Amino acid sequence: MSDTATLSRLFSGIQPDLDQVDVTFQERATSGLDILNSASMHALGSPGKRLRTALTLLSGKLNSYRFDKLLPLSVAFEMVHLATLLHDDIVDNAMTRRGNPTVNALWGNNIAILLGDYYFAKTAGLIADINDNRIDHLFSDTVATVCEGTIMEIMTAGRVDLTVESYYEKISHKTACLIAACCKGGAILSEASNEEIQLLHDYGMNLGIAFQIIDDILDYTEDQKTIGKPAGNDLRQGMVTLPLIYALQEQPLNGNLHQVHTILNGDAHTEEEFMPIVNWVVKGPGIKQARDDAYSYAARARALLNRFPPSADRDVLDELIDFVLTRNH
Amino acid sequence: MSDTATLSRLFSGIQPDLDQVDVTFQERATSGLDILNSASMHALGSPGKRLRTALTLLSGKLNSYRFDKLLPLSVAFEMVHLATLLHDDIVDNAMTRRGNPTVNALWGNNIAILLGDYYFAKTAGLIADINDNRIDHLFSDTVATVCEGTIMEIMTAGRVDLTVESYYEKISHKTACLIAACCKGGAILSEASNEEIQLLHDYGMNLGIAFQIIDDILDYTEDQKTIGKPAGNDLRQGMVTLPLIYALQEQPLNGNLHQVHTILNGDAHTEEEFMPIVNWVVKGPGIKQARDDAYSYAARARALLNRFPPSADRDVLDELIDFVLTRNH
Repeated sequence: MSDTATLSRLFSGIQPDLDQVDVTFQERATSGLDILNSASMHALGSPGKRLRTALTLLSGKLNSYRFDKLLPLSVAFEMVHLATLLHDDIVDNAMTRRGNPTVNALWGNNIAILLGDYYFAKTAGLIADINDNRIDHLFSDTVATVCEGTIMEIMTAGRVDLTVESYYEKISHKTACLIAACCKGGAILSEASNEEIQLLHDYGMNLGIAFQIIDDILDYTEDQKTIGKPAGNDLRQGMVTLPLIYALQEQPLNGNLHQVHTILNGDAHTEEEFMPIVNWVVKGPGIKQARDDAYSYAARARALLNRFPPSADRDVLDELIDFVLTRNH
Repeated sequence: MSDTATLSRLFSGIQPDLDQVDVTFQERATSGLDILNSASMHALGSPGKRLRTALTLLSGKLNSYRFDKLLPLSVAFEMVHLATLLHDDIVDNAMTRRGNPTVNALWGNNIAILLGDYYFAKTAGLIADINDNRIDHLFSDTVATVCEGTIMEIMTAGRVDLTVESYYEKISHKTACLIAACCKGGAILSEASNEEIQLLHDYGMNLGIAFQIIDDILDYTEDQKTIGKPAGNDLRQGMVTLPLIYALQEQPLNGNLHQVHTILNGDAHTEEEFMPIVNWVVKGPGIKQARDDAYSYAARARALLNRFPPSADRDVLDELIDFVLTRNH
């Protein structure tokens, strides 16, 4: 089953609300400037998973669901996610995302910077509409942490000695923190108890870490047709991720360490230089070991979720764990 | 009298509070990441005028001054101003600001993007502390408008046919809007009446427009020693400002239009190409006409201010108008 079909099935119960989030996003993102609207429409048009919105809404469903409050929160989370993607694509000098040209590719870095900033500005108004001080601070702290995660990524680029611990610190900040905040925010606005709020936060954090590990595995194992970029794109960009860290720890080097250095330093330019290392990572034990880690985090997410009473919505959050592990891209 | 000496005298009554804003800024900007702190300290170390904070505090002084509320607002406004400067310096590819190297020059564009984003995130927490829905929306709307202004600037770069009206729309969005918001925010948090809030907003808007016109004049008339960049820097960057617009309207062209085109298109590279046009603008009637406009906006700001009862704080706001007009850089 395709990823899209799986998510359609999982999200069938919240589809009208997901659609309303999309509509409100577009309304709130609208500016008096045509170029902003064009760039915004393009950025929104990319086939996203709406994973963050679904987690916000489903976390709310476990208690007293208040869509009127979850709507601005979901839009704000999607908007800040899109803002960080826009700026990430500049940092990574990425010309495509999911096979489509990026905003920086089409309109230049400057417009991409400003569109991201514009989204940051707009999220402040959405969060203000919710009028809950806990959400205000959750949002501010989360965005600051995501920025710190991105800076960790920039600072550790090219570092062949990146440790497993530093990798986890980086992805916890950059990716998992926002996913955890979606779950936590959904819980806060649904009159969940403090214990439930913490459980859902921790569920999101573990799910988010598993999500990013799988992302980093797919970067090695999927090809351009599926994810819109060449296999081993992270490596080509100088990014050291878990499969490579484990590969370097576990496998006899056979001169590969030198070649990894060459690539990470930006001194490799041809497929003849990249592909042996990509294939070495793909065929070695690093991928399996990274996948084992992802499954461990997924198991923790599931255990936390199981402390809620059984319900159809809990089942969807449970199935989302499987989706994160088994998705194709 | 130097600019610094003038401001020291004008701000003597609020100096302890200005200092507290600086201290709180540094506290709130602190991150667990050394690089963020280093970049942040560097960005903060640039000699700023603290004009936005002074306007916020002095506007508050016209009614029931509540420094506990004005403190986070002032920090948030200074922080968002710094965030926009960080991103502006990337957009302008600026290597120095007020004679010091920019964050992008020292740490690269990526760190400068992320430091700006980090500040945006942190402002959300500061605004949340104020806990006033009017301020939430003022802040969100203002930052969105500033982003739109910057995009207008990017989109109109190189446009020799930029109209006076488009110039005013651009600077109202990019610069004056934030200055107006400082005054308005100060009024809102000091139990000012709706009429007083509007008056102070309009005072700030007119002052902000005068401020930017004078900035654009100084860009032509001051030399590298004073402002840290060569005379006519805006022109070299392809930016069409009021002195040039009026020069093109008023003066016989003598082939200068062609040369302006060449510069705005980025096809001029030597001082021999730049300086005749810079000197033509400086010596022609464009500067005086732009200055007349600045004085008109300043007069409007003064008339609005005079509707408040006389007070020492109103006098400072009044003298700030003169400072904006007569400053050296």
